[in-house]
Amino acid sequence: MELVASNKVVGGWHKRYRHASKITHCDMTFAIFLPETVNTGNKVPVLYWLSGLTCTDENFMQKAGAFKLANELGVAIVAPDTSPRGEDVADDPKGNYDFGLGAGFYVNATMPPYKAHYQMYDYITLELPKLIQAHFPVTTQQAISGHSMGGHGALIIGMRNSQKYSSISAFSPICHPMQCPWGIKAFTGYLGIDSTQWQQYDATALMLNQQFDSQVPILIDQGDADNFLDEQLQPWHLQKAAEQISYPLTLNMREGYDHSYFFISSFIDEHLRFHALHF
Amino acid sequence: MELVASNKVVGGWHKRYRHASKITHCDMTFAIFLPETVNTGNKVPVLYWLSGLTCTDENFMQKAGAFKLANELGVAIVAPDTSPRGEDVADDPKGNYDFGLGAGFYVNATMPPYKAHYQMYDYITLELPKLIQAHFPVTTQQAISGHSMGGHGALIIGMRNSQKYSSISAFSPICHPMQCPWGIKAFTGYLGIDSTQWQQYDATALMLNQQFDSQVPILIDQGDADNFLDEQLQPWHLQKAAEQISYPLTLNMREGYDHSYFFISSFIDEHLRFHALHF
Repeated sequence: MELVASNKVVGGWHKRYRHASKITHCDMTFAIFLPETVNTGNKVPVLYWLSGLTCTDENFMQKAGAFKLANELGVAIVAPDTSPRGEDVADDPKGNYDFGLGAGFYVNATMPPYKAHYQMYDYITLELPKLIQAHFPVTTQQAISGHSMGGHGALIIGMRNSQKYSSISAFSPICHPMQCPWGIKAFTGYLGIDSTQWQQYDATALMLNQQFDSQVPILIDQGDADNFLDEQLQPWHLQKAAEQISYPLTLNMREGYDHSYFFISSFIDEHLRFHALHF
Repeated sequence: MELVASNKVVGGWHKRYRHASKITHCDMTFAIFLPETVNTGNKVPVLYWLSGLTCTDENFMQKAGAFKLANELGVAIVAPDTSPRGEDVADDPKGNYDFGLGAGFYVNATMPPYKAHYQMYDYITLELPKLIQAHFPVTTQQAISGHSMGGHGALIIGMRNSQKYSSISAFSPICHPMQCPWGIKAFTGYLGIDSTQWQQYDATALMLNQQFDSQVPILIDQGDADNFLDEQLQPWHLQKAAEQISYPLTLNMREGYDHSYFFISSFIDEHLRFHALHF
């Protein structure tokens, strides 16, 4: 594991690392925020943050404004990349932003040529937590959050691994990818045309089919001025499915907010407090 | 004046505008944060933020994490671009980052070809405040801050216009540009080789020569792990000159912090409170 960058921030540290992944078969970069309490030998819980389309490990760390409260609460934050990268890694044939590089959709691809590297579900749920546990002063307590495509990732990963994550949150998540253009394109490309294979990666389908061991609480924030709301994000599908089985899901619609990090930075503190409450 | 972007944030608004400048003779872009108190008809004071080399109006607005407290304090923030831009605007002949586009150094250039557009001192002190006063719900109270090259800009503009700015602050400012490589290159290019012309744009020279009407209080934060500290920034020159005349200047050396926005985001709240105290 190679240290790429290190910056002191709010008394703690932001660090970036590169490592050779055995699951995605390429070098992966991730960033970690460590609160200052680790300087005095304390172990801290970890919030995993999954970013959206076109993003890397850097967007959240530079723009979310999460460190002050995370430092006060004593929470580490880990932000992985959004896809495998490198010359060997297949991209969208037309280089579009919504598939391939920067758009791993947190699934294990089964279709060539993508299955060779696009194993982001296993990377996020198995390899990365093991790496974090081995190298940093963290407890086994974990929560997961994300934005847009990463909000989708947080929902499906949290719901399917209820032993591993004590709470789930998302900003502007893709809530029913099987029925929106971004999701249909990604699932077709990574998983093939048999849509029964898609359900394991669709938060609304998981909710409808009750594909979880226990009910990990979910908090979602969504701006009502978000350009992607009606066509891509559609949180009402998930909300309705949750209501039918009395699943603990809170959806906050936020008047006037859009899809940007200006929105995330406005409400990230509420998400941090939500996760801290459940650790 | 054309609205380029608008994002709701922490209850207030981040907006970007483009306008044709009569001083720089090109289109200029700036960003403004308006706290939510303006929604109910209140006028607010303005903090001007001058960015550093390679930056635009966007860096501070996306990375500083200033909005929550600025909203609480009821302070607007205006972030101009760091140079004139456009096809007509002369750049560094070799395209280097430290001169020309993105590196206006907040001076009025007197040397061709730069004097045609590089009139950033007048743009920041005259045209932009007039535009802000005319179009936004602001009082006449102003303060000024900045980072690196923009810290230099904040210092010289604040000191030379003590009627207009009630307080000055800077992160990692270039404190004695006449005697550092970045400053010597910029001043030679924009102002020519006669270094007597440089003194009006050098904070340490202004301090030594007491070139100000009254003593506007100055707050500086500087990381001691900043790669540019010894060669380019050199705050000790300014600190020593201030001590000689009992000028109210506070220099905080911050252990372990570097030149990045991770540093700025760690201490921006203290700067906002400093300015709020003096409005």
